[in-house]
Amino acid sequence: MSVGAANFVRRIPEGEDRERLTCAECGFIAYENPKIVSGSVVSVDGRVLLCRRAIEPRRGFWTIPAGYMELGETVEEAARREAQEEACADIALDGMLALYSIARIGQVQVMFRARLASPGFAPGSESLEVRLFSWEEIPWDDLAFPSVHWVLNAWREAGPGPLGAPRTNPTEDRRGTRPLTEGA
Amino acid sequence: MSVGAANFVRRIPEGEDRERLTCAECGFIAYENPKIVSGSVVSVDGRVLLCRRAIEPRRGFWTIPAGYMELGETVEEAARREAQEEACADIALDGMLALYSIARIGQVQVMFRARLASPGFAPGSESLEVRLFSWEEIPWDDLAFPSVHWVLNAWREAGPGPLGAPRTNPTEDRRGTRPLTEGA
Repeated sequence: MSVGAANFVRRIPEGEDRERLTCAECGFIAYENPKIVSGSVVSVDGRVLLCRRAIEPRRGFWTIPAGYMELGETVEEAARREAQEEACADIALDGMLALYSIARIGQVQVMFRARLASPGFAPGSESLEVRLFSWEEIPWDDLAFPSVHWVLNAWREAGPGPLGAPRTNPTEDRRGTRPLTEGA
Repeated sequence: MSVGAANFVRRIPEGEDRERLTCAECGFIAYENPKIVSGSVVSVDGRVLLCRRAIEPRRGFWTIPAGYMELGETVEEAARREAQEEACADIALDGMLALYSIARIGQVQVMFRARLASPGFAPGSESLEVRLFSWEEIPWDDLAFPSVHWVLNAWREAGPGPLGAPRTNPTEDRRGTRPLTEGA
């Protein structure tokens, strides 16, 4: 994270090996850490639920329900909350599909496989539109982020059975450092 | 995270649903997010590598090599770096054993299964001692954290073969909210 207070400077604290955001007055170290995104591939009768983003970045593009995990919740609770917020969907998780590191932007993304726990969905305040897509209908060119491609493919390859070990970054972007403009 | 600057207050920003650490002067929001710990169960000929902590919390107790992920690295790189720092061990990961949410302290712990990539290990600056334990020798009463119990059991149950879906919190502490003093 970044801190707005003007008295924070970057320097290497004693006993550490890298620069930290440090208060020049009191020496307090504001550690900056990667953030966790929790999301889910929600399917209904083989079709996948996608949300068209109402907010930047990538407004107008399609994504799975996903967002930043909050303090005090579990990764599973975060995935369910995001589905509620973005798609007004009450979901049940049935396992982890993937864990992606996006080093470029300091994110770790935990992706679950899920189904609707009760019928119905609708756009939340961060979505323009929410709908189900068959595999053939998925708007690949209009997906918001590379990891949406990755996880949809992981979901497809996993099939409906028991989940094995979670997928990690694909070989072509092993560390999640490829610029977004290079596409999926 | 916490911020040391005295002008930060907790209040609900416009358009949000919960209190955020906010600069009373400029309105800057310092988002506080869960932190990611990355660690590994490193085994050599069926014995597990444990480190006796030289630092608080839980100085003197045994743990696996694990620590906070840094910005700009992947979870796998973080696990390898921590093994290097705490046990001077060069490790190779072979899959994810577990993903734990410790809601009580705002942590997500990603746990890998690993082996030594090159021979040798020694205490790093944060360890008093590093050694290999057979399953029967593991000092269960002197382990530093509940999740060390959890992941050692996950490692044992996984056996040496291909890893399936990662474990999550055990049923007795589903959200990671049990006080540390209640034991594992």
